Amino acid sequence: MELTHALKQIQPSYIREILKDAQSEGVISLAGGLPDGQHFPVKLMASSLASLAQRPDLFQYGQTAGYGPLLDYFRTQFQLPEHHDSLVCTGSQQALDLIARAYVNPNDKVVMEAPSYLGALQVFGLAQANILSVSQQADGPNLAELEACFAEQAPKLFYAVPDFHNPTGVTWSVPVRQKVAQLCQQYQVTLVEDVPYRELRFSGELLPLVSSFCPEHALVLRSFSKIATPGMRIGVVSGKANWIAPLVKVKQSADLHSSIPMQAVLLDLLTHDEFPAHLATLRALYQERYTSLAEQLQAKLPQGCHSNPVEGGMFIWLTLPPCDDFALAKQALTHKVAVVPSSVFYKQGEKVTPALRLNFTNATSEELVIAVDRLVEVIKQECGIA
Amino acid sequence: MELTHALKQIQPSYIREILKDAQSEGVISLAGGLPDGQHFPVKLMASSLASLAQRPDLFQYGQTAGYGPLLDYFRTQFQLPEHHDSLVCTGSQQALDLIARAYVNPNDKVVMEAPSYLGALQVFGLAQANILSVSQQADGPNLAELEACFAEQAPKLFYAVPDFHNPTGVTWSVPVRQKVAQLCQQYQVTLVEDVPYRELRFSGELLPLVSSFCPEHALVLRSFSKIATPGMRIGVVSGKANWIAPLVKVKQSADLHSSIPMQAVLLDLLTHDEFPAHLATLRALYQERYTSLAEQLQAKLPQGCHSNPVEGGMFIWLTLPPCDDFALAKQALTHKVAVVPSSVFYKQGEKVTPALRLNFTNATSEELVIAVDRLVEVIKQECGIA
Repeated sequence: MELTHALKQIQPSYIREILKDAQSEGVISLAGGLPDGQHFPVKLMASSLASLAQRPDLFQYGQTAGYGPLLDYFRTQFQLPEHHDSLVCTGSQQALDLIARAYVNPNDKVVMEAPSYLGALQVFGLAQANILSVSQQADGPNLAELEACFAEQAPKLFYAVPDFHNPTGVTWSVPVRQKVAQLCQQYQVTLVEDVPYRELRFSGELLPLVSSFCPEHALVLRSFSKIATPGMRIGVVSGKANWIAPLVKVKQSADLHSSIPMQAVLLDLLTHDEFPAHLATLRALYQERYTSLAEQLQAKLPQGCHSNPVEGGMFIWLTLPPCDDFALAKQALTHKVAVVPSSVFYKQGEKVTPALRLNFTNATSEELVIAVDRLVEVIKQECGIA
Repeated sequence: MELTHALKQIQPSYIREILKDAQSEGVISLAGGLPDGQHFPVKLMASSLASLAQRPDLFQYGQTAGYGPLLDYFRTQFQLPEHHDSLVCTGSQQALDLIARAYVNPNDKVVMEAPSYLGALQVFGLAQANILSVSQQADGPNLAELEACFAEQAPKLFYAVPDFHNPTGVTWSVPVRQKVAQLCQQYQVTLVEDVPYRELRFSGELLPLVSSFCPEHALVLRSFSKIATPGMRIGVVSGKANWIAPLVKVKQSADLHSSIPMQAVLLDLLTHDEFPAHLATLRALYQERYTSLAEQLQAKLPQGCHSNPVEGGMFIWLTLPPCDDFALAKQALTHKVAVVPSSVFYKQGEKVTPALRLNFTNATSEELVIAVDRLVEVIKQECGIA
């Protein structure tokens, strides 16, 4: 059968493809965006999971918008105004897909930072959007570029990951947050603020959401994959009720609703007395691993490689001397370390700075030491450094 | 924000809208397609649910195609040939949506029986398909119409519910199954065989899948919402591997994968020693309710109303004398009985026979007696029968 025009132009996810190889015997994976499976809060979920068999009502068809008590919790927790709503999704990935399906016609303009989250590139690619890139700096998007883009191109959406960006780890400064919000208001561009890593801050101060400065011009995507567990596939999108309603309509067609038992278990977990302690443990663990990786890189990397410090999240962005980073990543796999090359985070045909995304949440500090040794060897080989 | 062209033309699901009203105090609902929540096999799921907390690996990100052991089970259970694959979806509703997104360009031709499953009308509507209707007879689609449609219009897909059709309850005869399969092969039309009610046969003989006569020209959608529970949201689509792979690609963008813990629990349930007994109980229960509803209708309905017997599934299709069945359904709600009018099962602008879809699986036999009394009163009023 012939594929749709939209699908023909989509490449399969390199990351999800190599996740298979990354699971091979002996490979240390810095490739995925996987949280540490040894630290899933399953103990805190145990009584909730066991209680499901006594709650058959959770197994019936439910409302498309989500499990009522969870939606109530979100309203309080996110301090949503009366005229805002939430929609529970099958992961925040689905929220992104629903937004594209509800609001993005082929050739509609969507702005993203470059590099950007691969899953977003795929979603907007599948929607046949005209993706416009603005370059990213150490404290967020290049504002002059962004304003020129808004003014000249009149895009519909600006997709952004302002906290511990995937893949670069960059966190927007407060002035950048305020300015982006002002630009979205001024030019009537909807901000899609994706904050899956926001709760994983292990140093520095919590910064306000960008959307807190432009709540009527934003949709906020939250994930529980990093702080609870990804396998449950529960995320949520919030914003003005009249912007959420069309997403509900698309979701009716897409899958009717997300798993209700999983939504109930998530609610029990988020409201568990010991959940804050779990989060604190997780942050400390990731900080330790981040520190280990950053120190190893600092100590062992050849000249011409560079990475910026991060205050949370899951990734270090390692820029490389001129080289074919795609070939380098493949070579690294043969040396039993999995990493993701820069190019997969750019739309096709875009100018790419050679770099690697390194995940530090799914390998132990000891493994990270070995991984860096292996990686340094490959980098020296591939970049022609003695 | 302006909606996409595709979404602008979609009406929200009437059924899902009225499900809210149908839940009001005292309303007996024959409206939804809800299985009986009192008979969910939660006891058979209890130890599996409780064990999840000891299986943290199920909570990590998983493969898009689904949980490996569940896919293995499907391969054996469905007797899939080596070159066929399955893809686990967030309900079989998602399978339908993925098929439309992978294979249906705007204006591509999709054939459906009229009336047809509302969720399919929505999916193919959202895909901006050109929906072609063939009329339905007591033993399946009108074959002369279907062949003319295939020959003259060269459609891409034929979407069908051959077992206990939603909304009409019709089951295709074996000769019709064979002929449709032959036509799909001859005219290179892909059959999308949707069989959510297949396991709910309470009389008569199990008939072969239509796709068993044309396995290389079909995608089969299976649901566990009717035999396990709907709230888990697990369905599956099977077919040729090179037809499944593009669906996996779309699903990567759509939601990465479906809930893994729910997939594991479903597998434990389907392989539970007592699951066949659960199914037998369910069939007996639904047969009893069906019989009760059918007898009541037979005894009490005014002339000009008609329904055909069914051998399984969840619905009776009640055709009415000339009347506005939409107004009648609204009026019925004020009499505290919820039903779904014929018109929602047809594409917009199509000629509609006044009728009601009556569900018999989610009300007790006693409630069904009362519901018929209420309904008969409304029908007499609205159809002007003394």
